[in-house]
Amino acid sequence: MENFVDILCIGNELLIGKITNTNAQWLARRITTLGLKVRHIISVGDEIEEISTAVKEAIERKPAFIIVTGGLGPTFDDKTLEGVAAGLSRELEKNQEALRQVEEKYQQYVKDGRMERYELTPHRVKMAMLPKGSKPIHNPVGTAPGVLAEHEGTKLIMLPGVPSEMKAIFDESVAPLISQVAGDLIFFETSIGLWGVPESELAPFIDQVMHDNPYVYVKSHPKAAERIPHLELHLSTTSEDGKLARQRVSKALIQISELAQEKGGKIRPVKASS
Amino acid sequence: MENFVDILCIGNELLIGKITNTNAQWLARRITTLGLKVRHIISVGDEIEEISTAVKEAIERKPAFIIVTGGLGPTFDDKTLEGVAAGLSRELEKNQEALRQVEEKYQQYVKDGRMERYELTPHRVKMAMLPKGSKPIHNPVGTAPGVLAEHEGTKLIMLPGVPSEMKAIFDESVAPLISQVAGDLIFFETSIGLWGVPESELAPFIDQVMHDNPYVYVKSHPKAAERIPHLELHLSTTSEDGKLARQRVSKALIQISELAQEKGGKIRPVKASS
Repeated sequence: MENFVDILCIGNELLIGKITNTNAQWLARRITTLGLKVRHIISVGDEIEEISTAVKEAIERKPAFIIVTGGLGPTFDDKTLEGVAAGLSRELEKNQEALRQVEEKYQQYVKDGRMERYELTPHRVKMAMLPKGSKPIHNPVGTAPGVLAEHEGTKLIMLPGVPSEMKAIFDESVAPLISQVAGDLIFFETSIGLWGVPESELAPFIDQVMHDNPYVYVKSHPKAAERIPHLELHLSTTSEDGKLARQRVSKALIQISELAQEKGGKIRPVKASS
Repeated sequence: MENFVDILCIGNELLIGKITNTNAQWLARRITTLGLKVRHIISVGDEIEEISTAVKEAIERKPAFIIVTGGLGPTFDDKTLEGVAAGLSRELEKNQEALRQVEEKYQQYVKDGRMERYELTPHRVKMAMLPKGSKPIHNPVGTAPGVLAEHEGTKLIMLPGVPSEMKAIFDESVAPLISQVAGDLIFFETSIGLWGVPESELAPFIDQVMHDNPYVYVKSHPKAAERIPHLELHLSTTSEDGKLARQRVSKALIQISELAQEKGGKIRPVKASS
């Protein structure tokens, strides 16, 4: 079975188009670079039923990881852990280690002078109410710990939606877990810009290059319609052998460049996407 | 039954984190503003099986609309219509009206001097191969028409992934269909910035305001961790009565502002998100 990852983003702000889902892109980029394939990115709202259904559907696909982001905070509208617990048919329970991590954070805030004192209010305890059998993951930046739950070989990892917290927990604790599963797999990619050949004219050559280079995925991205047609060609492959990956992509790149130039196209390098 | 919309985004570039999914945000914003609720945003790769499964799953949820974006182009890796056809258990067939629209576009390109001549190659005909029983939607910007298919009360609308084309087709032909279903529903929202009160301290007041204002959804968005806590509070509602919507949000806004100020918080207006 192929090891893959599903990303599940929780938040009404995504569904009303209030924000762009930069978290999903960041996670997808990181996971791809670590060598695993992301197969689905799903956004749902802050509703227990929606979250629970999305978790159940994802579990049935048997991914190696389900990365859930958003909805771990102290407010009532943050329902991720309740939804995940329902999706796993587990209860929520107060996790002592999570509570310790939350308390430690507030003690630190008092020490730093950011707060005068703190009380362990129900809203703060909420951040330590985890689905039964799961573990907190240290949050180096904010108060809500990440959460790790396992279900029939799938690791579910719940991360806060605040980008700085999500990234910090991911890099510190999640990336090593993913690397372990990915082993030596490496993702290699390159892009070129092509001017002067319409996509529909290049199409047969892309098919030919994909056919001749079965391990390389070639995708053409037409840029905004202009008088002179402009495409970005993106070539990528995954392999356990970094040198081989590079060779495969280079070979396909040379072939598509030559075919495009025969058609009168002009090739230019493309800046790496951020 | 509630009328809602699912958005389905097709493209490996989303799953490898090559690009941010700005199309999904744009669509979600437009649809919300037109009065309907987006319930799911799903991204899958350029594979027939993945697209077909996502379409089947979305259809079972019985949305009013499924908006599919990406993968309508002339190249072999654009598999949206094949995937949608499989999801609907229909064949692809050459649609004469779609072919006419594609041809018209190339004739125009020749007239404009953008191409010397054109041939109706299989890759160009591909853009007119639609799931049986569906209709092309005029593309005011590019060559690939949009596509409208209906299935048991759900309208499936396939749009190109190039943002300028997607937006042009949506505004010209899709927005009127959505407005028709939304009727007089209006989405109303506002945001304020709050400094000096940690989210965990504000949490009980948010709960109280949500309880006292059952039609208003209040969500707190913690901003990057700083020495002084900084939250954005977003309040929104949907109603058939624009004035009532505004009144409801204003009442909740006043209440949460007063409670936050009692806690020593400072309120500032927030720039409208783009």
